Amino acid sequence: MSEPQPTERTKVNRLAKRGFYDKATIFSILDEGIICQVGFIFNGRPFIIPTAYVRLNDFIYIHGAKSNQMINAINNGSEACFTVTLLDGYVLARSAFHHSMNYRSVVMFGKGKIVEDQQEKINALKAFTEHVMPGRWDDVRKPSEKELYATGVLRFPIEEASAKIRTGPAVDDKDDYELNVWAGVLPVKTMFAEPQRDERLKKEIVEPDYLLNFISSKM
Amino acid sequence: MSEPQPTERTKVNRLAKRGFYDKATIFSILDEGIICQVGFIFNGRPFIIPTAYVRLNDFIYIHGAKSNQMINAINNGSEACFTVTLLDGYVLARSAFHHSMNYRSVVMFGKGKIVEDQQEKINALKAFTEHVMPGRWDDVRKPSEKELYATGVLRFPIEEASAKIRTGPAVDDKDDYELNVWAGVLPVKTMFAEPQRDERLKKEIVEPDYLLNFISSKM
Repeated sequence: MSEPQPTERTKVNRLAKRGFYDKATIFSILDEGIICQVGFIFNGRPFIIPTAYVRLNDFIYIHGAKSNQMINAINNGSEACFTVTLLDGYVLARSAFHHSMNYRSVVMFGKGKIVEDQQEKINALKAFTEHVMPGRWDDVRKPSEKELYATGVLRFPIEEASAKIRTGPAVDDKDDYELNVWAGVLPVKTMFAEPQRDERLKKEIVEPDYLLNFISSKM
Repeated sequence: MSEPQPTERTKVNRLAKRGFYDKATIFSILDEGIICQVGFIFNGRPFIIPTAYVRLNDFIYIHGAKSNQMINAINNGSEACFTVTLLDGYVLARSAFHHSMNYRSVVMFGKGKIVEDQQEKINALKAFTEHVMPGRWDDVRKPSEKELYATGVLRFPIEEASAKIRTGPAVDDKDDYELNVWAGVLPVKTMFAEPQRDERLKKEIVEPDYLLNFISSKM
């Protein structure tokens, strides 16, 4: 696809300097997040469902049980709003008013369709697993026919999307720099603790390299 | 208030054992989160905005510039859906199909109103600051008349709300327990890195105790 163009809805109006519309920025945020929020209208009312997702080429995929209300509402034509939010830091300013957060977020709008093509569906399920942990797909039992049938995969084109990013220090009012108040940024990090082995895991199965590599890559 | 009662919308239908409706569970999730997602309908379309929030008694407060589209759409009667999602772990099952996430989430529906009472507004702004970092409010410059005027604070009653929680190990198909696939849970933690002092901070201002205590309380 070409670069997404800002539309009436994705254009960042307030604090416009925080808005980004290029594919590289949008994709890098989408590829780092794990949980998205999907907003849709059902019976005339707004709903949000948090769910896992993955980006594959110029599409976002989400999945759920075929009987899932969200999957069906969106497949039946309800337009969706899709957000990913990464919190990077607390911005502690000298005044309460200028406190802020450093964050990277993507907002996207679009219509989703259930993936009917079996190969695309399998590719998406593989991508979900690999997005959570690279190397995992080759290790696990692949979906059976029955599991594939029970799973609904929705595809959204990444067309109407924007990123919003705040980085850097607190911005205080001129006079406030004289105050004796500690100011700075407290960086937020998502980390992993020691993996907890399944109680029924055979004793001889050791932690795989891709798992250990993944944990150390996030330190 | 009395305990929120499950309604048609907040009742957890799929995997009903994951649904909780008691105040203690709902409040504990709301009090741990920092960012919420606010969904609303504007010009007939679904929007989601990530924003900071705080719970105070039986209300959720969010804030933004008075000119903010979301604040105005909701104050003008657009019903909102409000979610908080805490990711606790990756659940790595023996099959791709049974991979999951451990999480705690709250979904809430309601109509929000701009807070007109000045004291309630100041109480909410204090609660925002203290929710991010206990002890911070007493240290910082309080909002001026002008800043108070420029800030819109919205209040939502916590009435129609539910929590959804998944904890514990992977649940695999009976036959899959024989497979030679590592299975377990990888716990996800939100941590803080070393605080970054503002470049313009006076040299003699040391990191305050409440900041150091906060960081060590999250380790």
